[in-house]
Amino acid sequence: MDARNMLRFLVLSFGFTLVLLLTWFHFPTSFLNKETLDCNVYSGWCTSKNRFHSSNPINKPKFSTHNQKPRHESDVPHHPLDPLTIREFNEVRAILSEHPLFKSSNSYTLNSIVLDEPDKELVVKWKKGQPLLPRKVSVVALVKGVTHTLIVDLSTSEVTNHETRSPSSGYPTMTIEDMQSVLDVPLKSDEFNRTIIKRGVNLSDLSCLPLAAGWYGTPVEENRRLIKVQCYSSKGTVNFYMKPIEGLTVLVDMDKKEVVSITDNGLNIPVANGINTDYRYSVQKLNGEMNYLINPISLEQPKGPSFTVDGHIVKWANWEFHLKPDPRAGIIISQAKTYMDAGEYGFGLQAMPLDPLNDCPRNAYYMDGVFTSADGTPFVQPNMICIFESYAGDIAWRHAECPITDMKVTEVRPKVTLVVRMAAAVANYDYIIDWEFQTDGLIRSKVGLSGILMVKGTTYENMNQIPDQEYLYGTLLSENIIGVIHDHFITYYLDMDIDGSDNSFIKVNIKKQETSPGESPRKSYLKAVRKVAKTEKDAQIKLQLYDPSEFHVVNPLKKTRLGNPVGYKLVPGATAASLLDHEDSSQKRAAFTNNQIWVTPYNKSEQWAGGLLVYQSHGDDNLQVWSNRDRPIENKDIVLWYTVGFHHVPSQEDYPIMPTVSASFDLKPVNFFERNPILRMPPNFQDDLPVCKARDSA
Amino acid sequence: MDARNMLRFLVLSFGFTLVLLLTWFHFPTSFLNKETLDCNVYSGWCTSKNRFHSSNPINKPKFSTHNQKPRHESDVPHHPLDPLTIREFNEVRAILSEHPLFKSSNSYTLNSIVLDEPDKELVVKWKKGQPLLPRKVSVVALVKGVTHTLIVDLSTSEVTNHETRSPSSGYPTMTIEDMQSVLDVPLKSDEFNRTIIKRGVNLSDLSCLPLAAGWYGTPVEENRRLIKVQCYSSKGTVNFYMKPIEGLTVLVDMDKKEVVSITDNGLNIPVANGINTDYRYSVQKLNGEMNYLINPISLEQPKGPSFTVDGHIVKWANWEFHLKPDPRAGIIISQAKTYMDAGEYGFGLQAMPLDPLNDCPRNAYYMDGVFTSADGTPFVQPNMICIFESYAGDIAWRHAECPITDMKVTEVRPKVTLVVRMAAAVANYDYIIDWEFQTDGLIRSKVGLSGILMVKGTTYENMNQIPDQEYLYGTLLSENIIGVIHDHFITYYLDMDIDGSDNSFIKVNIKKQETSPGESPRKSYLKAVRKVAKTEKDAQIKLQLYDPSEFHVVNPLKKTRLGNPVGYKLVPGATAASLLDHEDSSQKRAAFTNNQIWVTPYNKSEQWAGGLLVYQSHGDDNLQVWSNRDRPIENKDIVLWYTVGFHHVPSQEDYPIMPTVSASFDLKPVNFFERNPILRMPPNFQDDLPVCKARDSA
Repeated sequence: MDARNMLRFLVLSFGFTLVLLLTWFHFPTSFLNKETLDCNVYSGWCTSKNRFHSSNPINKPKFSTHNQKPRHESDVPHHPLDPLTIREFNEVRAILSEHPLFKSSNSYTLNSIVLDEPDKELVVKWKKGQPLLPRKVSVVALVKGVTHTLIVDLSTSEVTNHETRSPSSGYPTMTIEDMQSVLDVPLKSDEFNRTIIKRGVNLSDLSCLPLAAGWYGTPVEENRRLIKVQCYSSKGTVNFYMKPIEGLTVLVDMDKKEVVSITDNGLNIPVANGINTDYRYSVQKLNGEMNYLINPISLEQPKGPSFTVDGHIVKWANWEFHLKPDPRAGIIISQAKTYMDAGEYGFGLQAMPLDPLNDCPRNAYYMDGVFTSADGTPFVQPNMICIFESYAGDIAWRHAECPITDMKVTEVRPKVTLVVRMAAAVANYDYIIDWEFQTDGLIRSKVGLSGILMVKGTTYENMNQIPDQEYLYGTLLSENIIGVIHDHFITYYLDMDIDGSDNSFIKVNIKKQETSPGESPRKSYLKAVRKVAKTEKDAQIKLQLYDPSEFHVVNPLKKTRLGNPVGYKLVPGATAASLLDHEDSSQKRAAFTNNQIWVTPYNKSEQWAGGLLVYQSHGDDNLQVWSNRDRPIENKDIVLWYTVGFHHVPSQEDYPIMPTVSASFDLKPVNFFERNPILRMPPNFQDDLPVCKARDSA
Repeated sequence: MDARNMLRFLVLSFGFTLVLLLTWFHFPTSFLNKETLDCNVYSGWCTSKNRFHSSNPINKPKFSTHNQKPRHESDVPHHPLDPLTIREFNEVRAILSEHPLFKSSNSYTLNSIVLDEPDKELVVKWKKGQPLLPRKVSVVALVKGVTHTLIVDLSTSEVTNHETRSPSSGYPTMTIEDMQSVLDVPLKSDEFNRTIIKRGVNLSDLSCLPLAAGWYGTPVEENRRLIKVQCYSSKGTVNFYMKPIEGLTVLVDMDKKEVVSITDNGLNIPVANGINTDYRYSVQKLNGEMNYLINPISLEQPKGPSFTVDGHIVKWANWEFHLKPDPRAGIIISQAKTYMDAGEYGFGLQAMPLDPLNDCPRNAYYMDGVFTSADGTPFVQPNMICIFESYAGDIAWRHAECPITDMKVTEVRPKVTLVVRMAAAVANYDYIIDWEFQTDGLIRSKVGLSGILMVKGTTYENMNQIPDQEYLYGTLLSENIIGVIHDHFITYYLDMDIDGSDNSFIKVNIKKQETSPGESPRKSYLKAVRKVAKTEKDAQIKLQLYDPSEFHVVNPLKKTRLGNPVGYKLVPGATAASLLDHEDSSQKRAAFTNNQIWVTPYNKSEQWAGGLLVYQSHGDDNLQVWSNRDRPIENKDIVLWYTVGFHHVPSQEDYPIMPTVSASFDLKPVNFFERNPILRMPPNFQDDLPVCKARDSA
């Protein structure tokens, strides 16, 4: 467990996944209000103009970087976990087009095409230079309103598995075409057009968003795919989110492209003026608003970064892992293996290209994603992930000895980390996902929220007009604009394999121990009571400040020299819990937020906390349901789930754009190493640091 | 409340103080074990060789910086809050030497000499260029075992106030001489010398530490100042902390320099071998342990930093504050006004010089402290505080618009902050205290723990020898070494003056609101219930995950344009609570940890959560006692107290030196600004960034 061996032990030590991200808006109004912000619906917007067509030259990444990236057309996989290549996507499409299911239908959509990862044991055994393991592909398709899941074996060009799903399990992620086509549907309605005119909005200023319909178990929802369309005025600002046409919502049948119903209860609510909500630099500069400047500051590495990227293998300091983009999860880090996802959505699909020098510092490496659209044609998601070294001026460790000991000691080491980042702009909200690797073996997972609030129109212009502020359910942010109280939950799937796949989860409870009479003048001490979770229910955990525990995942059969089992612990950061009624339909569907921590036995079909098919799901195939089976988890291949939560009571500072708010948790070695692995890091010396000049004087 | 006015509103907006820091070790053994690590006792070590004598040339700071620092001999105060200068210290000493209390005594100690800050209202009204307000000085002295507090008026050269304290209120911080002189006392005892020989320790390798005795209400403690001496072997390592002479503790009368009692119950416990515990670069390098290197990485600002320091006034971006070193608090930030302290101790006294390039990045500004020793002579604490701009590659805010809207928008701003840092090496532990200022008005206060664990010797060499691991009260870190479970608590004194001194504390409770039948398919929504704290007991708060609140300090009479009261909120980070019995003597003395949040009316005599005189205090003059008076706090000049806690269950990775572990909380504007104040910040442009070369190629 020594630092030199860290790679070995971390290889296949982790597989973690951010599985589900929900943004809830809580309106005390009618059925049609946006209670769930289904952001995946916008992924199409972000990618539709960015398609890869094999007959065309590949879209060049919008921003050039210092890295030479391969042309994706000729990509071949080098590692069993490497994502599907353009060639492979095209093979899949050819195979499926000959399959009876698709051959007989002239309208179907391929909602998801991703690598079906080989069994863990095979991946662990596989060595560089060996032939690649057989490549299999997992496909989710929608044919005439019915969901199908298939496995395609590329080595035999055959469909080896095919299952048909019932509508009650939910539908797959919407396609770009679904989302784009529904936006025009409301205009077919005279009622809608009349309302738009009454509200004083020109059709040329109309901006509409498709919002996931959720699931409430009403008859209107049965056996059809629904979507809500919510509209805005974009007059005078790109920040149309701040100009909602309040109370107007159109429920649309996605397949028939028909209006199901229109709710229009905001005729008395003016569209907000949106003055000075345009946040762009060009506009702010024009308005002369740039009134303070900070001298340029930059992370400089004239000898270049210290990490290497070979295909999808990243190496840095004492770390090595496999990194790939994923259409649903966003980032997957394997061997350490990581997914991120946005539930019904498609985090990777929504990942806008990162903005060099602003989203990531100089010397960052940018990785593209290659995904497919609804008909199976691949496209490139450029500059989707960045990798960089970070140094904030912080201290990795230090000690200064006091002069009286005659030991003239001052030893301090700067803290440098490796960050893997993506930013998903899910319509209004921007999620920044960081995985940060430290030289002491700690992994910090951080999620940042920025972008624009989803607001609600109101007749109110000042708080003094509001009789009972409690029932505002939010904060007056500007005239006619309420920022509504809402929550965010991000659930991480952490497939922990500490030094082997069979692990145990131990709750290390910190407890007060009363002393015996006369034992000590003290009445109590602290002790740690270790309790191994035998079954899943032992590991359904709500965090408690006054009943604190550490949460260890250990390999019970591997011990340090001193006899401590090797492990990693989950260290929660500040978080928030869901306060909703468990019987509430949204909470049923998002029941994975009922606890902060869960542990399940590894099961390939249980990768997404909200279920594989989340759209209009009923909540009968999710983490709560699986965990309630109460299967044995001691000394098994286990998956740790952790949910980060935010309560967001907006304030005027969130208007018209939100400063980034972050939350994080750590995975921290606990007796994984025999000793502190970072003693070996040298301090900074003046002569090692770069010599820099301002560009205008260089 | 707009960004341009931020300075005005933040001037005298805050006064916050880190008041009390306790490190507890919980041993289920005898009275004499170190239950409280009283780190101030080492402050002498850190400063005794660093005295300023006005007849000698001033000690030059150990490290030169790019800043030209004034010679402290000629310092004069420029601002009513500026710390006492060397000249003023010498004036105080002259005045006191003529006072009957000291004239008649040939042995007294001046335990604390600090500026007695003028009344807030006078400081607020004072403008640059006006004559300084009368300079008054607060003195704590110990004369023949009795504590005296005095106020000296430098404008009249008179002692204007003199109070005598009873021993039951506790004693002042020990002096350097107290601490140094007690270390030899054990050697007067034959029993002690015999034990040292029996343990196989050479006198030349003996290293002893003075540890505060605490208070348990036993007869032996009455009316005398006690201290415990704990000894180590430093054979073969500078990390003697890892080689305790376990079970040997000597209780010493500090004034009589006599052994009161010796406890020796560890004869069967070997002194650990300490192999490879020496963490110094020079030693690790010699051992060939430096086996991976990261290319140089540096925060570069070729146009220099963007902040200015004028005397003690720091200006950066939209911030301005007064910054001074303090012997007890460490850092005081005023107008924003901040103290930090270590209870019985003296955080400023223990602040070792910061190590440029490692403790703080390039372009940092270093500030010295000028304090006094026990006889009132001033000395310089060089490079005690650093100020620097930080950029970790993070994102202040971002939004990317989707292509379907035909708004080609990608706006991202890098996050640059200003950090004020000190590092106090309190014997084995190193505390890193950061105050970080963001351009969006947020202040993050962070405390990092590094350094060396206080460990316990044991006969055990492997976990398999230990029958009941619960009663180990810790973790086996190396052969014969146990890292004991302990807590750290840091209490911050936050004298909030939001846009004026009269403020209210509001608990904004986030609650589930059930819907009426038929109102909605949803069963519940979130609402915010605002409750103004009328009296102190309304503001005694324990954090609860499932009953969450925001904690606002507002000026109820100042409203934004929209009618929201202007305010700041306290945003707790991950924290830990004390689990000890309230009747436990340690908990009684540290009763300020009974809640995470408290609010008290401003009272000049209530500045330190554990009381002014903490040494051997009984717990009858602290935050719990004051708050229980339940005074009115609505629309008053109020002080907010917040405690950050850590549970530390050590792991092998903490041996032989600990990677930094941090915790933080935020003070965040909530309707303090009319809108997001950071829209004005421009993005990074390639042409603004520096041009750098590796030094060896430059």
